[in-house]
Order: sequence, then structure tokens, then C-alpha cells
Amino acid sequence: MQVYLDNNATTKVDEKVFEEMKPFFCEVYGNPNSLHSFGSSTHKKMLEALDYLYEGINAADEDDIIITANATEANNWVIKSVWLDKILDGEKNHIVTSEVEHPAITAACNFLEKKGVEVTYLNVNEEGILDAEAVKKAIREDTALVSIMWANNETGKIFPVKEIGAVCREKGVLFHSDATQAIGKVEVDVQDANVDMISFSAHKFHGPKGVGGLYIKKGVELSPYMHGGEQMDGRRAGTVDVASMIGMGKAMHLATNTMAIAYEKNHVGMLRDKLENAILKIPDTIVIGGRENRTPNTTLISIKGVEGESMLWDLNQNGIAASTGSACASEDLEANPVMNAFGSDSELAHTGIRFSLSRFNNEEQIDYAIEHIKKAVERLRNISSSYAYTPKSHESGL
Amino acid sequence: MQVYLDNNATTKVDEKVFEEMKPFFCEVYGNPNSLHSFGSSTHKKMLEALDYLYEGINAADEDDIIITANATEANNWVIKSVWLDKILDGEKNHIVTSEVEHPAITAACNFLEKKGVEVTYLNVNEEGILDAEAVKKAIREDTALVSIMWANNETGKIFPVKEIGAVCREKGVLFHSDATQAIGKVEVDVQDANVDMISFSAHKFHGPKGVGGLYIKKGVELSPYMHGGEQMDGRRAGTVDVASMIGMGKAMHLATNTMAIAYEKNHVGMLRDKLENAILKIPDTIVIGGRENRTPNTTLISIKGVEGESMLWDLNQNGIAASTGSACASEDLEANPVMNAFGSDSELAHTGIRFSLSRFNNEEQIDYAIEHIKKAVERLRNISSSYAYTPKSHESGL
Repeated sequence: MQVYLDNNATTKVDEKVFEEMKPFFCEVYGNPNSLHSFGSSTHKKMLEALDYLYEGINAADEDDIIITANATEANNWVIKSVWLDKILDGEKNHIVTSEVEHPAITAACNFLEKKGVEVTYLNVNEEGILDAEAVKKAIREDTALVSIMWANNETGKIFPVKEIGAVCREKGVLFHSDATQAIGKVEVDVQDANVDMISFSAHKFHGPKGVGGLYIKKGVELSPYMHGGEQMDGRRAGTVDVASMIGMGKAMHLATNTMAIAYEKNHVGMLRDKLENAILKIPDTIVIGGRENRTPNTTLISIKGVEGESMLWDLNQNGIAASTGSACASEDLEANPVMNAFGSDSELAHTGIRFSLSRFNNEEQIDYAIEHIKKAVERLRNISSSYAYTPKSHESGL
Repeated sequence: MQVYLDNNATTKVDEKVFEEMKPFFCEVYGNPNSLHSFGSSTHKKMLEALDYLYEGINAADEDDIIITANATEANNWVIKSVWLDKILDGEKNHIVTSEVEHPAITAACNFLEKKGVEVTYLNVNEEGILDAEAVKKAIREDTALVSIMWANNETGKIFPVKEIGAVCREKGVLFHSDATQAIGKVEVDVQDANVDMISFSAHKFHGPKGVGGLYIKKGVELSPYMHGGEQMDGRRAGTVDVASMIGMGKAMHLATNTMAIAYEKNHVGMLRDKLENAILKIPDTIVIGGRENRTPNTTLISIKGVEGESMLWDLNQNGIAASTGSACASEDLEANPVMNAFGSDSELAHTGIRFSLSRFNNEEQIDYAIEHIKKAVERLRNISSSYAYTPKSHESGL
């Protein structure tokens, strides 16, 4: 049996999404900016896709949603254009973010630090989040931007975006949220949440890879990151990837319409809980950051004495896909930065394993996964030299 | 009949390319950076795609080809990272380019000018190109980069890349060439051509939209434009768009293998010449920049007294797609910047029409196009108020 439980890394494209995309490769292939029918015949479906995107995040008609290559581009765009607009050419010199952001935010901020920008990386608490008060304290006179994620890729923990947004509004500071792991899992309502900008990537919600978006609230100025043609009202140059944009729209529609959300919450959440409950029955296992306030598809578990990498290999041999950390860092064997954020306990950082489900998982798959997880823990603990050692977090019952 | 003669704007995805891409949406969907089989099962075809890309431009094994969203990203990357690396943090302050580059180069350079960078936009001669001597004269002590396109999108004119590269090498200046309009039309051999970097976009050679590349010669340092995960050896973050990368590889293979080149030259060039000869038999028509030294698929023609836009509409009503200028600027009715470069004759700039062919055109389509072009010229000249006026370029017989 093949069981894919790594949906926070990437997802299968929904067949319904692919069906929408298909005609736009070999049949309706015109450039949407061309003046002839080959070009304009793309417009109807592109507009429908935009409608789905606006609807999916409850953007106002006068706001912008700009199609990008992915959330990494959207995140780089925000960080670097704020730098260019408000720091290099302005009077600000400070950015506030968290220590558990996606590498696209963290690495871009690291890069700016080399250019003299001051960046505050806020710590998360033992629940893996931070509160609006912490953000409020960190904001200075010269703060140009606050960028705090909507939901964490590793733990699934949901950040208090609305409250952070209110603080930023009060202080007059731009607020960006990387919502890549939130779309289709929890409600993302940009008008309710007081955000100025959010990033997202289609391949995290059963759309294609290579396409994402940046929501920009009406009135927010932000220099383009891709200069060139006048596509996207001059905000992002480059021939629009018509098929992918249409796919992303459909994927957003499927992921966020009321039925789908109910389905995710009831079905995916139930399966995740079943999986988690079964694992927690194995002695010396904990859910990192705790079980409250998470996206319904994610669990990050530490299994004492079992190195995450070894676990992955055992599961992989049985057709089960999981992760030890952000897919963007999975190939190197560094400790997971998100787990590091929970403290200096390096064994904890190496024993984490993340299971992330989707609406394509079913109960039979979860039963199969439980069976093989149990077997793997037993086998690996038998050969583990470190099982005698108890990470502090296990002792404290975190 | 439907006749697509706007292949410099974008191309139909070859069915063979789409066949290669198909499995990577709903079946083989893992993240290539994941450690499990869902991820690693993408690797074989990705490596094959890379091989095709290296082969297609004759890159050396130790050089890099980095997958981007398109040539616009690749062009922005080069211009802006050279700025960051060598101008903002270095001692250089000057970039040399031409006045007929793609907007992704020109607009990025315009942006840098606002940051205090000096940019020389070299004029083209009456043939629409410039020679290496002009570049040599423009290079200064503080020149950080020369960026000159391989072939022009409007005229198809081929620039003396190898000679310009030799000048840059002699002067110790980085040389980038936007090869977007050259790949698959003329031989692009990066080792022979003395280039440090070239940009390209798959959708210009029958690959998918939303994917392109930047070739970077071994030893050339260039800060990443997309910071984040460790994809592409740390040179370009963001989940790799597996399907598109595989599609681009296949498209490159089909476009550049020896047979295809011969096919393009003989078949596409023959059809273009047939079309062009027929149009030139109409009185008061000229090929802008002349007929020598062009990509074999392109002709940019000025038809006296016939506005390009009007011509497009007449042709469009008969199912024929052409262009008045770069697709990236086609939606606004500004005079074409490439034709402006030929002089101040604004009527010339508004009478240009570009036909760009592909290997999917056939003789029947060209005969059909010729028939309708003749009819359109006749109709439009009958209602034209400007046919009495002769652009200077027509008088000089350019």
C-alpha cells in the first residue's frame, strides 16, 4: 500500500484541477496579453480563476492578488521590496519576524542583515506560537515590516494573526503573513484578519507546483520584484502561466468552499487524531507544541530513542511517506529549526517526525500507517543506543 | 482556418512535451527534496531534463543551469544581483545594455537608475544590431555587467554574441545574454560564445509557460534572487516545479537536436521567406532592419499606410494571429520600442507587423495567410488617411 502523509511538503494535484489545466497546454496556448483570439480565448477561465482566489481568501474587489511562481517568490518580494522602499530609500531599518518562519522569510531576512538591516526573530513559547503582545513590544519607531506566518509548516500551530494585525495597524506598521500552510486547512479571511499582505503556494492545496500568489491590500505600495512587461497591472512582469493560474484557482475553490472546509475539519482532522492517538499510546511519545490550536491535518511527534531519519526509512520501505522537517531542508541532516526553537534539547530536535494528511487519505491508509509505525518504533528502539537517554522535554511532559 | 503566426510571443506546447509532463501532476507528485520514494521517484526524469538542457546549449558539466519561473526572473536576477554584489556592495557603478532589449532587462535597468546606477543603452544600427566595437567603447573602469540579447524578439536580428563576449572577457567584465528568442531557432553554444550567463524561457520553444532558466558559467558568483530552501544547490529557493522542468527539458531536446535545427532552418525558414516574398510584392512594403542575419522564423514588416493594430484585427477575423510588437507590451498602443530604435519616424513605428512562425506551421497555412494579408492591405489602404504620407524609411529604401 502507498500512503502519502507528507502533504505539508507538497500535495497531489487534484484530478479536477488537472482537468481544468489540460486545454491550456496544447490547445488554448495563446499569450493572454496578445491582441488576437488565441490570446483572448484564455481570458474567461483566467478571470474565473481570479474570482476563485478572491473568494477563497475573502479579498475585496479593490485589493490585488498577484500571481507569482510560488510563496518563496511572494515572500522574497515582500521582504526585499520593503527593504528597497522603506529602508534603503527610507528612514526605517527594522523588521520583526519569528524564529519559526519558512526559510524563504528567514533566509531573506538573514540576507538583509548583511546589508545592515536589523531583524528581530521573536521566540515562540512552549506551545510553538507567540502572542500579539510580544509583537507589540518588538515594534520600534523604525520598524518597516512585521512578517509572522499564519500556520506553522512543522507543528501546524496557528498564530494569532488577527490580533497581531490589530497591533500592526495600531502602530502603523505593514503586516505580512505567510499563509502557505493555512490555505485550505483553516479559514483565511484577509479582511477579517487585519493583514496587508499574504503569501501562498498552490502546490500545498492540491494545485500545481510552480505557481503561487501574493495578496496585497488596496493602497499598500510595494515595488515590483519582477520588472519587465505590464502583466498583472505592472506589479509582476513575465508571461502569465495560464494553465497554472487556472489550476490554482480551481484548487483554491475546491480547498476553501464551505463543503471542503467542513470535509477537511471532520474527515482529515478525525483521521489525524486517530493516527496521533494511536502513536501516543506508544510509551515515551509526545506531540511537540501540544495538541491545541493546530491545522487539522498536521502532527509533529517526538518518539523517544527513535531518530526521525531512521523512522522515515523504515516507513518508506513500507510505502509510507512522512517528513522530519520542512521539505526545503529535508535533504540535509541538520536538526529541524522549528524543533530547535523549542529549546536546546538536541535529541528532541532529532526525534521529530511529521505526518501531514490531506483529503485524499482514508481510514484504511491510516490503519496501515499505525501498524507500521508501531513496528518501526519497536525495531528502532531495540537497536537504539539513545533510548536510555530521556530528552528534557519528555521529562517535563511538554 | 486557424493560423498561429505569433510564436515569438508564445508557442503551443508540443504534444510530446505534454506527454512527458502528465504523470507529474496527479501520479508522481512528491517533492523532489523529500527523503521518501514519492520524492525520489521524480529524480530520474529531472536528471534527464537537466541533461537535455545542458546538451541543448552545450553547457559544460561544471557549469550551472538553474531552473527559474521564466526568462523575466532570470533577467531580473542577473541585473539586480550584479547590482547588489558589485555595485551596492562593491566599487562598480555602470551597466552596458542595448536599447532594444526585452522589457525585463530595460525595466530592471530603469529601476537601478533610480538607485543611482549609470546605465548605457547602446543604439542599434540601421540593421537593428550593434557591433562588438560599440560595446568595447562603452565599457568603463566601473562597468559591472554587459547584457546584450542573443536575438531580437521583434526583428529576429542576431547579435554578434561571440564577439561581444570576447570583448567582455578581454576587459574582465561579466557578460550576460538574454537568449530567449534564440533557443531552438539558431545554435546557442555557451562555450563557443564566451558568455557568462544566458536566460531562456520554455514557452518560447514549445515548452510550458511558467518555467525558464539561467545558465551560469562555472566560477561566476551571483547572489541568489530567491532566498529560502536549499533547492538548486542553494542558488534558487522554492519547490522545484517538477512537471514544468521535465517539460522544458524535453522541449529543449526537441528544439535543439541536430535534426530539429535542420528542420527549422529548412522548413520554417522556407515558409517565412515565402510569406515575406509575397508581402514584399505588395507595393510600399519593407522588412524592418533588412533580411540578413535573422532567426529563420521571424519577419517584421512595415506596410505603408496600414496601421499595425488595424491589420491585426483584420487578420484576427480570419483566424490569423500576428503581433505588432513584444507580447509584453502589446496590450497598450504605444509605438513599438524596437521600431522606435530605428529612428524618429513615428509612422514607421505604427505600421510594423510581426509574423513569427514555428515548426507547426505548414504551407497551406502560409498560403492562406498570404491571401488574407493581401486582402487586408487592400481594404485598409482604401480607408487610410495616411497612405499619402511616406515614412522616411520607405523613401530611403531601408
